[in-house]
Amino acid sequence: MGPQLNVSLCGELLDLEKLIIEKSASVEHWLRDSFNQNTPPFYCSVDLRNACFKIAPIDTNLFPAGFNNLGEKDMACTVQAFMTSIEKRCPDVENVLLIPEKHTRNKFYLENLGNLFSILSNAGLTVRVGSIDPLVTKTVGVNYRNISGEDSCFEISPLIFRDGKLKLKNFDPDLVILNNDFSSGIPNDLKKINNQIIIPSLRDCWAFRRKSYHFAKYDQVSKEFCKFIGADDWLINPMFEHCKKINFKNKQGESCLTDHVSDLLKKIKKKYNDSEIRKKPFVVVKADAGTYGMGIMTIRDASEIKNLNRKQRNKMSKIKEGVEVSDVLIQEGVYSFETFVDSETESVAEPVVYVVDRYVVGGFYRVHSEKGLDENLNSPGMQFYPLPFENGCQFPALSNDPNSTTNRLYFYGVLARLAAIAASKETSNSPQSPV
Amino acid sequence: MGPQLNVSLCGELLDLEKLIIEKSASVEHWLRDSFNQNTPPFYCSVDLRNACFKIAPIDTNLFPAGFNNLGEKDMACTVQAFMTSIEKRCPDVENVLLIPEKHTRNKFYLENLGNLFSILSNAGLTVRVGSIDPLVTKTVGVNYRNISGEDSCFEISPLIFRDGKLKLKNFDPDLVILNNDFSSGIPNDLKKINNQIIIPSLRDCWAFRRKSYHFAKYDQVSKEFCKFIGADDWLINPMFEHCKKINFKNKQGESCLTDHVSDLLKKIKKKYNDSEIRKKPFVVVKADAGTYGMGIMTIRDASEIKNLNRKQRNKMSKIKEGVEVSDVLIQEGVYSFETFVDSETESVAEPVVYVVDRYVVGGFYRVHSEKGLDENLNSPGMQFYPLPFENGCQFPALSNDPNSTTNRLYFYGVLARLAAIAASKETSNSPQSPV
Repeated sequence: MGPQLNVSLCGELLDLEKLIIEKSASVEHWLRDSFNQNTPPFYCSVDLRNACFKIAPIDTNLFPAGFNNLGEKDMACTVQAFMTSIEKRCPDVENVLLIPEKHTRNKFYLENLGNLFSILSNAGLTVRVGSIDPLVTKTVGVNYRNISGEDSCFEISPLIFRDGKLKLKNFDPDLVILNNDFSSGIPNDLKKINNQIIIPSLRDCWAFRRKSYHFAKYDQVSKEFCKFIGADDWLINPMFEHCKKINFKNKQGESCLTDHVSDLLKKIKKKYNDSEIRKKPFVVVKADAGTYGMGIMTIRDASEIKNLNRKQRNKMSKIKEGVEVSDVLIQEGVYSFETFVDSETESVAEPVVYVVDRYVVGGFYRVHSEKGLDENLNSPGMQFYPLPFENGCQFPALSNDPNSTTNRLYFYGVLARLAAIAASKETSNSPQSPV
Repeated sequence: MGPQLNVSLCGELLDLEKLIIEKSASVEHWLRDSFNQNTPPFYCSVDLRNACFKIAPIDTNLFPAGFNNLGEKDMACTVQAFMTSIEKRCPDVENVLLIPEKHTRNKFYLENLGNLFSILSNAGLTVRVGSIDPLVTKTVGVNYRNISGEDSCFEISPLIFRDGKLKLKNFDPDLVILNNDFSSGIPNDLKKINNQIIIPSLRDCWAFRRKSYHFAKYDQVSKEFCKFIGADDWLINPMFEHCKKINFKNKQGESCLTDHVSDLLKKIKKKYNDSEIRKKPFVVVKADAGTYGMGIMTIRDASEIKNLNRKQRNKMSKIKEGVEVSDVLIQEGVYSFETFVDSETESVAEPVVYVVDRYVVGGFYRVHSEKGLDENLNSPGMQFYPLPFENGCQFPALSNDPNSTTNRLYFYGVLARLAAIAASKETSNSPQSPV
């Protein structure tokens, strides 16, 4: 026996998974209908947590990194899905500018970028990478290892803004693809573009996007799906509350936060009691516009809020690129009981599913050996290692065994697509003003 | 060293393959453009022959069998491509009737049918199989082995025609998918359908389709492609002639055939001389509306025509389902120098590439150990065994080595897509009257 993922679903969740597997053709039909009502995200990654009695998406990233963590066997589907995505959005495009995050010294991010560069090239685009980082003043070569383990390279060049377009020296792209969520705001040159297609839309950046709005849409989508299939949506839908105008440093809005945390913990307690779940409820407080695992804390009792020490308050008050946190999402905590058993160690494993256009293309487990089962696994400095999914999430196994890996991954793929549908509704009707 | 495919390209063909690999992003862009001008076939398989100095598609099947011969690793892309194909053509469809060939006792065909059934189900369709064979009077179960080696089953039921639709008892499909090329004509009930979508179109059946028209379109497409990339189209384009109103039994039209064979052999000879190819030219005479490897013969000298004996004449005069041959295609013979070397035996291997909508999803080698290098490998009673392609044909390798398997298969995938584009032009502008 090699290393294995050690979890069995239970209770109503097991019944829901069985239903989804048995009715997979109808489930796919339902998903097809739903994706047809709104344009799916160009690409996204969805973090799931599996508590055995509940599985839920807890974060949907519309500027996904981590393409380096997919399996080699996932590449063909990934390339094919990007082909479809490009054909639908901008079939005439040939030259593409890929804009990455600024942190160009993070080895893992550069591996992601290299693999994304290679995937988009294979999808039939002539790709160049251009950085918004003012420190990038000349073209630099980047060596990376691709998914097949081969040494490869690409270049990062400084951007030039001219004629309403972003360009590189001797490269005039028709399309700009963003792999940067612009948490700290959209650079002026990008706002001024009037002669180029930008994908994803700038309104999908964290400068505009709100987690609370995403989960409101997910609440709607998961309710519709569970009504269709005949199940309680709580099994896949994390409850949440929302507080505005919080200032962690001077305790402004603290009572709003305490009240909502207390309410949500009570609701979870009731659900746990009704379902005879003998676990301690917890909530996760997150910056509403945050990303990158910053500005996140786990709360097990409302009294913890007023007892936060200065270090904890500082940690919550700022996210990536120094942006101040003011609005927070208070989300039902979903335990991560999925563990990865390798010889003598048992590690927490959190699945991350990649969706390109409407297609699940693969995913991996974020395996972490030190953190607890109720802690955020996507935190700065975290030591996780990626474990690509054993097989695709595209379709169920021939057998109806809900605990077969193939069926479990198919179930994950369905949940990730529900989150992608929520994202499609979110961005097409966003109350946030676009650029 | 395991078994391996033993062939190296040479001369201008090697240069062409190098160009395609180096410029793959532009090649993909060209293909995307071309597919956008006409609707690609719902599905097709393309037979290629590799003579090292020339590689060409020699048959494009719009009702492909052989899905059982694909690799397990190809399934995810295949399902995804069918999803895209369905989404574009008929997103609302849920219930689908699959109509197979009549020969329901051929084990390999039934395996194809079972795998196609499973692929379409996984693409989000509720599929049932209904036979036009009048001998099928009640629902019968069929056991088959799927690509993953698992034992599985499906049912074949008799068809009912009612309200302008084909149905099964208790099953009212919105869509009819044909896996039957109707060589001997289209059944009356199918012609009367006025309330259902039929895919592929009935005009794609061999009752209407002509090989000569397909290769005229392929001639045009391959010329455009080679002009774009800068190469001689002969490298990938088999020359052909066309004779109408042939009767092999009473020798009617024999002089037309002899003249054209003679002309074509001279043209090939000239090309061989110009390119310093020291091989004996040959042509292949095929029924213009034929399929299934029937009504095909190899000719090395025009004099062979008048010396055909009665048995040979009979063999050429009828194709599948007893249909009389009257029109023939005289196609430049392309040697098959690709061989499969397994311990001590060396076998001829002919690649077959599968294209679903615009996506290459995989393929296999038809490996045959008895036939000569210039004979048709798709003949009745042939003993071939399938060898799934080692990896996908979706994208080239990181290395530019034209003899790497990945690059060779990518090249095959490009050629198969050129044939699919020809088929898309053929069916949308067919001079044959539709139903």
